[in-house]
Amino acid sequence: MDNRPIGFLDSGVGGLTVVKELMRQLPDEEVVYIGDSSRAPYGSRPVEQIRKFTWEMVNFLLSKNVKMIVFACNTATAVAWEEVKSKLDIPVLGVILPGASAAIKATQIGKIAIIGTVMTIKSDIYREKVQLLSPSLAVKSLACPKFVPIVESNETKSSVAKKVVYQTLKPLVGQVDTLILGCTHYPLLRPIIQNVMGNEVKLIDSGAECVRDISVLLNYFEINRERIDLKLRHQFFTTASSQAFDQIAENWLQIPVKSRTIKL
Amino acid sequence: MDNRPIGFLDSGVGGLTVVKELMRQLPDEEVVYIGDSSRAPYGSRPVEQIRKFTWEMVNFLLSKNVKMIVFACNTATAVAWEEVKSKLDIPVLGVILPGASAAIKATQIGKIAIIGTVMTIKSDIYREKVQLLSPSLAVKSLACPKFVPIVESNETKSSVAKKVVYQTLKPLVGQVDTLILGCTHYPLLRPIIQNVMGNEVKLIDSGAECVRDISVLLNYFEINRERIDLKLRHQFFTTASSQAFDQIAENWLQIPVKSRTIKL
Repeated sequence: MDNRPIGFLDSGVGGLTVVKELMRQLPDEEVVYIGDSSRAPYGSRPVEQIRKFTWEMVNFLLSKNVKMIVFACNTATAVAWEEVKSKLDIPVLGVILPGASAAIKATQIGKIAIIGTVMTIKSDIYREKVQLLSPSLAVKSLACPKFVPIVESNETKSSVAKKVVYQTLKPLVGQVDTLILGCTHYPLLRPIIQNVMGNEVKLIDSGAECVRDISVLLNYFEINRERIDLKLRHQFFTTASSQAFDQIAENWLQIPVKSRTIKL
Repeated sequence: MDNRPIGFLDSGVGGLTVVKELMRQLPDEEVVYIGDSSRAPYGSRPVEQIRKFTWEMVNFLLSKNVKMIVFACNTATAVAWEEVKSKLDIPVLGVILPGASAAIKATQIGKIAIIGTVMTIKSDIYREKVQLLSPSLAVKSLACPKFVPIVESNETKSSVAKKVVYQTLKPLVGQVDTLILGCTHYPLLRPIIQNVMGNEVKLIDSGAECVRDISVLLNYFEINRERIDLKLRHQFFTTASSQAFDQIAENWLQIPVKSRTIKL
């Protein structure tokens, strides 16, 4: 057993979709969250910069004495997960492998699409992982650089959001039966995405899938939190406005959130 | 990726229930199985002996160049899993934590029972793990020393089996809504157990739960088998009659099995 918190990192607020799923599946675990909203989106930045920013968040989480780090960000996972995982002596999870595995299990017709940031799509890591595990699958991918700014500005219900999602995803409609939301911001746009793609298309939430893995690894490494002291003190940090962060976080998590603004 | 096989060990044929689930969930992974039927059941033996026998099986599997070892045996898990896991540099999985976690999620009324061998029940490890994760749950446990011999002698459909299961489980009927099959032999008696306990009781198959964890750990350690070469060569070894083993294995796995008898 290990009563230290689990650390989550993301370029902004998208990783909260993973935290929400954690709170549902593992309600006794404590969270430290860092979202780098002042530098979001990561997805269109150069690799070396993403790598540096990710390490800054990792080091911040380590200073908070976390027992595990979750890359609740596909872009950071694509760029730096393997490196960070190999260098730390606590478990480090990414969102890509859980998402890829879930999609392989979900597809009936063998046609999958992945949407993500420019960097995630350019890295081609989803296609690579899916096809290593299942070479016969047809994998399409599409960068959606306009989605993260919509989520970060809390405009997920606006008519602009609907228009952008519709126009962006049009090339995929009718082409696949499974769509990986390869960016943790995208579940906040899920109703619109589902509407555009059609109800028969399975949406794979890479972050939610990742929580199943968190649970298994807590067991494997025997670092679950004891249920004796139920007083949880989640901590949220952002590099941008804490007010804006709290608004999105409270709306999404349905709990009171008092984040602190920090500089990385 | 890692194309080496996964090693499974059990006191006898019970671990085949885990292998069956593996073949369903992860059909591309290759299996090396060792069942120590000549010395089964382990459950009533002294701890030191179980520990020694388990290490003999572990070393046998290591000689077969496995990439992961699965303790498909609750008794061996209770006695030696933590020690073996801490000494090897490949992942080592047990069946107890996955089973305990699944039961906690499954129960609606907070009343769980565990059935297992004398040793598994005496170790109290299931209760310990369940109550660490969820102290408020009421946990009953019951040793069922007569079940393994029935399975090992391939009499799971006999009237004797029905009578023994009925008489053994009587004290638990109506007491719980979730029953952990805390021995990998017991799923072979599942229809009878379900019948005795009633259809509303959830039976947790610790072995099947464990396969979910195998999948996550293959991802986490990046040791999935590539799907490029689909020619799988599963290997089965027993310390007793290979004919008797093959009969049970073919019946259970529904594939041709040619096991080899070895001496540990």
